[in-house]
Amino acid sequence: MLSKNEVKSIQSLCHKKQRQQEGLFIAEGVKLVEEIIQSDYRVKKIFATDKWYSENTELNAITTIVSEDELVRISNLQTPNQVLAIVHQSTNVELPLLENKLTLVLDGIQDPGNLGTIIRNADWFGISQIICSHNTVELYNPKVIQGTMGSFLRVKISYVDITPLLKNTNIPVYGALLEGQSVYAVQKPKEGIILIGNEGQGINKELLPFITNPITIPKIGGAESLNAAVATGIILSHLCS
Amino acid sequence: MLSKNEVKSIQSLCHKKQRQQEGLFIAEGVKLVEEIIQSDYRVKKIFATDKWYSENTELNAITTIVSEDELVRISNLQTPNQVLAIVHQSTNVELPLLENKLTLVLDGIQDPGNLGTIIRNADWFGISQIICSHNTVELYNPKVIQGTMGSFLRVKISYVDITPLLKNTNIPVYGALLEGQSVYAVQKPKEGIILIGNEGQGINKELLPFITNPITIPKIGGAESLNAAVATGIILSHLCS
Repeated sequence: MLSKNEVKSIQSLCHKKQRQQEGLFIAEGVKLVEEIIQSDYRVKKIFATDKWYSENTELNAITTIVSEDELVRISNLQTPNQVLAIVHQSTNVELPLLENKLTLVLDGIQDPGNLGTIIRNADWFGISQIICSHNTVELYNPKVIQGTMGSFLRVKISYVDITPLLKNTNIPVYGALLEGQSVYAVQKPKEGIILIGNEGQGINKELLPFITNPITIPKIGGAESLNAAVATGIILSHLCS
Repeated sequence: MLSKNEVKSIQSLCHKKQRQQEGLFIAEGVKLVEEIIQSDYRVKKIFATDKWYSENTELNAITTIVSEDELVRISNLQTPNQVLAIVHQSTNVELPLLENKLTLVLDGIQDPGNLGTIIRNADWFGISQIICSHNTVELYNPKVIQGTMGSFLRVKISYVDITPLLKNTNIPVYGALLEGQSVYAVQKPKEGIILIGNEGQGINKELLPFITNPITIPKIGGAESLNAAVATGIILSHLCS
């Protein structure tokens, strides 16, 4: 049985401030939690149904058995799926830009679903690291974590001040803009930075001078723009394949 | 001032059953509502702030002035944006498959955000119609409407029984699968059906025999799958450009 305090303390991890103070985050669902357990992340506590526990008794993590109703109370999902884990955040390490590889750089992505999907895209296309501006939505937001479908375990993600990063590199910067060279005509680069801007505002004006290769996805119909995660997927499919 | 009954009646349109009974749906935000007013859709009623109303007094639609607080009460958005419209649904017309064009066919897309984004993708890439299976999420779900960013006004969308549709056509069917010809190697077709399956289950088994051209987006990294809207965007970018 879960105490009221326990429920409150789990629910409080929906809030960024609380997550940062405690250095914890929530992950849910059989597949994701099992992947996290096998990863380098340290699991603090697991809340699981009897069914899940009986199939995972060999685990070292402290597990509290909960009823389906209790799981609904602590879950952020519309249909909770057997298990919820409280996990220790990993420290934010400033990643260097990689030579001979592509790095995805995100400037102010705001929607957690978009960030989750972009991380999943990166994982699909073999991008090994993503560098986010400080005003990009937080990785440990539950909607980001769930949206990655586990890809945050395979792609390194760090939050840095991206202006000096772009200023001090000789690696070509491919900026996704509404005007630029057609992404279909761009030669696949061996190394480079793929810079994606905010959903509404695009790339911050301050960063535009650092773009060496402005690229665009040519528009045929009437939509004003593409969703940021879709645009990232399309660009990766043309540059990384 | 909004009456309690008015608030209740607007809020009830969050529910599919109520939307279908009344043949109405909700659309929100300055840009979207203004696009709807200029479209063939019939607006039943508008709820707007004084500011919006004063800039749009020439409109014929019945407008109720609401305070910011009232708008928050009736809005489905996290940050309501000046205006909410109650709009008459258009009748579901069974669209024929188009010759010499590409048609997008959706088999059981469940997530409203995904459907909205797919409609936006189609609009960007100049696809003029989308045919959805009956078990695809409803177009008039507020999250779909908002997610399209107005693209549902430019792309025709209908819900049909897709098994006989695919059975009785000679137009090639490009099915998005985990195995198939690389989408990078597919010759851009003049006409065809692009068939996208459900987020978790993929394309319904019953439909697999009708796929003449199985296609796939080659995977480089570790993710198990791509988001359905991203995959659709990537496929359209390779087949429609």
